[in-house]
Amino acid sequence: MNYKMMGRFIAQILAIEAVFMLPALIISAVCRDADAVLGFVCTIGIVLLVSAVLWIFCRSAKKGFYAKEGLTCVGLSWIVMSLLGCLPFVISGEIPNYIDALFEMVSGFTTTGASIVPEVEKLSKGVLYWRSFSHWLGGMGILVFLLAVLPVSGQKGGFTMHLLRAESPGPNVGKLVPRMKQTAMILYIIYILLTVLDIIFLLIGKMSVFEAVCTAFGTAGTGGFGVKNDSIAGYSPYIQNVCTVFMMLFGVNFSCYYLLLMKQVKNVIKDEELRLYAGVALAATVIIVLDLRGFYGTLGETIRHAAFQVSSIMTTTGFATTDFDLWPGLSKAVLLCLMVIGACAGSTGGGIKCGRVLLLIKILRRNIRQIIHPNRVLVVRNNDQVVDEKVLQNTNGYLAAYAIILVISFIAVSVDGFSVETNISAVLACFNNIGPGFDVVGPVCNYSAYSYLSKLVLIFDMLAGRLEIFPILVLLSRSTWRNK
Amino acid sequence: MNYKMMGRFIAQILAIEAVFMLPALIISAVCRDADAVLGFVCTIGIVLLVSAVLWIFCRSAKKGFYAKEGLTCVGLSWIVMSLLGCLPFVISGEIPNYIDALFEMVSGFTTTGASIVPEVEKLSKGVLYWRSFSHWLGGMGILVFLLAVLPVSGQKGGFTMHLLRAESPGPNVGKLVPRMKQTAMILYIIYILLTVLDIIFLLIGKMSVFEAVCTAFGTAGTGGFGVKNDSIAGYSPYIQNVCTVFMMLFGVNFSCYYLLLMKQVKNVIKDEELRLYAGVALAATVIIVLDLRGFYGTLGETIRHAAFQVSSIMTTTGFATTDFDLWPGLSKAVLLCLMVIGACAGSTGGGIKCGRVLLLIKILRRNIRQIIHPNRVLVVRNNDQVVDEKVLQNTNGYLAAYAIILVISFIAVSVDGFSVETNISAVLACFNNIGPGFDVVGPVCNYSAYSYLSKLVLIFDMLAGRLEIFPILVLLSRSTWRNK
Repeated sequence: MNYKMMGRFIAQILAIEAVFMLPALIISAVCRDADAVLGFVCTIGIVLLVSAVLWIFCRSAKKGFYAKEGLTCVGLSWIVMSLLGCLPFVISGEIPNYIDALFEMVSGFTTTGASIVPEVEKLSKGVLYWRSFSHWLGGMGILVFLLAVLPVSGQKGGFTMHLLRAESPGPNVGKLVPRMKQTAMILYIIYILLTVLDIIFLLIGKMSVFEAVCTAFGTAGTGGFGVKNDSIAGYSPYIQNVCTVFMMLFGVNFSCYYLLLMKQVKNVIKDEELRLYAGVALAATVIIVLDLRGFYGTLGETIRHAAFQVSSIMTTTGFATTDFDLWPGLSKAVLLCLMVIGACAGSTGGGIKCGRVLLLIKILRRNIRQIIHPNRVLVVRNNDQVVDEKVLQNTNGYLAAYAIILVISFIAVSVDGFSVETNISAVLACFNNIGPGFDVVGPVCNYSAYSYLSKLVLIFDMLAGRLEIFPILVLLSRSTWRNK
Repeated sequence: MNYKMMGRFIAQILAIEAVFMLPALIISAVCRDADAVLGFVCTIGIVLLVSAVLWIFCRSAKKGFYAKEGLTCVGLSWIVMSLLGCLPFVISGEIPNYIDALFEMVSGFTTTGASIVPEVEKLSKGVLYWRSFSHWLGGMGILVFLLAVLPVSGQKGGFTMHLLRAESPGPNVGKLVPRMKQTAMILYIIYILLTVLDIIFLLIGKMSVFEAVCTAFGTAGTGGFGVKNDSIAGYSPYIQNVCTVFMMLFGVNFSCYYLLLMKQVKNVIKDEELRLYAGVALAATVIIVLDLRGFYGTLGETIRHAAFQVSSIMTTTGFATTDFDLWPGLSKAVLLCLMVIGACAGSTGGGIKCGRVLLLIKILRRNIRQIIHPNRVLVVRNNDQVVDEKVLQNTNGYLAAYAIILVISFIAVSVDGFSVETNISAVLACFNNIGPGFDVVGPVCNYSAYSYLSKLVLIFDMLAGRLEIFPILVLLSRSTWRNK
């Protein structure tokens, strides 16, 4: 293990985190929230100190960085970022308990949006901004940002590839362009453009600038932290529809946008994952609209709420315009399944991802064909290209890991004695980075009722979900820490 | 496709089914239940007629039988057996509706034990016997029985292997002895011996002969149909404990018993699947006993109920001594997970099977190691032997199929509007061949509340679960029916 190299990286990440806390500090200063100012000043100081110490000790790092270091580095830096990033909540006294603050921060960075705060409107503006901004940062990934802005002099391409692959969602991370630095830059430019577009549309709907920016951060990162107690329910239908559309847009594989910029419209339309994503969203909306007959006043209102909730849950955002915990069984079942499927690979959304679901269906189809024709050599294709067997193996491993973590987490949080529905939906909502579940953790409730032990389990689930499991499991594997 | 060969086989299966209905007919005659006698006489006549017609048309079958035909044959024969086997329920008027009767019959053959009958004590003895006996027959498999008793003159070994592999539970069916016919015979001899032993122990507990035989059938097939409204709750603690032990015994891989007969005790003790099975059962019992503090009068009573329910659910039997739907959240969560894990491969139990869970954990571990050491060639071992990659591929395919069927079935039965807990547990209980679930389908309730459409979905799940999915999926695949 190249510990020094990892230390250098984490030092850089922390420096960026400190810089990104400045806007929240400025907002707190402008609003004259003395406690919040103290919180951010102290935290920035601590983060910079840790960063400096790490940098000094690890300056003389040797080159040489492999997949193992890449995964460990990603896992560790997310953990360190969260451990320090939650300090403003604690120091300002707005979330005095450290575990609660950590839960909130991990929920922010992992774009989950599950909250332990009963009334978010009581939080100061600086803290609200930091919560929402953590979604934006976590959505595309802070390491990807690092790659985009830092000079990577003398580093081989493999090194950055390992980082990008470990932090980006999806079974099969492609390079958009041959150089990783450019890929990371293109991703962030698209991300910023879409976010700005979202803010503009929200401002047109007469939202205040602060609320528009925070809501856009929550949408862009498919996070779900809002600035109102009732999430998006209190806003106008126009704003709700803007959110519906932009949540769906941020759930699309960003390479599709790059292809659009390159004017390869045909390839985008033919993309199998995109078709599955749109098809499932459409089908789910239709089923829910049919199931909700008579639940709302007009058909228009029903469609608006159904489309919003489908878009919010499928992209794993977690905003709500209505208490869908009161919906009938079929609608809740559909939402529960959308939680698992999730958004597209290479987007800011979570879940298993449409691309992986597609691969699993294709693996199964090959399996059946193989039984019928035992001697044929059969391959799995995606968008007319043969998928490498290693990718299929990883997809299978992912599914196994997903199932095992789900079962163990479910049993662990059940110790608190809530209903089966609460526990299953809480684990699914955290593991798939959605936010609200059903019953005790429904859209009008929060996670504060769970014990600290359960919160730690859910924190693990959120991190494992956001980083696609393996970077976290690698941290726990003995082989990682054993020196050859 | 060798249709004639398949026809011949189904004709033979049906002839055996008719013979196996005779005891139920005799019991009905002795009890002078005129309606039941009519039911069985008519059904035996119809079954024999269909069998004869099939036999005459398919007499001139050519040799040549491959994996495809083997799987299709198994799937089809189970469907035909159920479609005709439920006729006594309908004709006798005891379950007048055909879909309900089919549900009950499929539930019997697949050893699920999910019932639509609110009060089983109102059923006639002949019908009760047929219900319970269907568990016994379905537990080891009627095709395995056919292999054991019929002369397989001129057939190649591959042909019988395909059948046995398709009908026997587990990822990796081994031959006990080189010839399949002997393997099938040995399996049935062990099965009969254990069943007789179970009956003797029940008789010692002063059960009536009829009840002892029916209960032993339900235990041996890990089915769960009882002859009392309150399942096993009304019997003495001794009888409950006998059931606990024998359910666990029937959940063990039968090849372990063969090894014991061959005096290879060491290999049995070292068997990894057996260790996982025993370990999970023990751990689950301990957790539930701790969770149930103060729920029952004494610690002894708590242990008895906990051990019984763990044994019943893990082996996918479905007997109950208490209404575990009233247990606290953690205990219910543990039971829900046991439902999924299931018994050992090569036993009469259902679920994913301990052997497959073991393989999935090992696949995941290899995956993590492969990420850490990308260039090493890593194999998966089971009981110190390298597992073939084809078996791993099938295990992965199985998990994908399992997840997809689970999700689709869950949405389909949710149309009826019951709670999420009801629907999830109903699908899990049917798909894993257990029987009772929670809430509306809890141990003191039954499945009659579901609509016919949901019942058909659950019938599909029961068949897919018992036959380990692929024989049923192959039936639905276009490639199966396409002639080269």
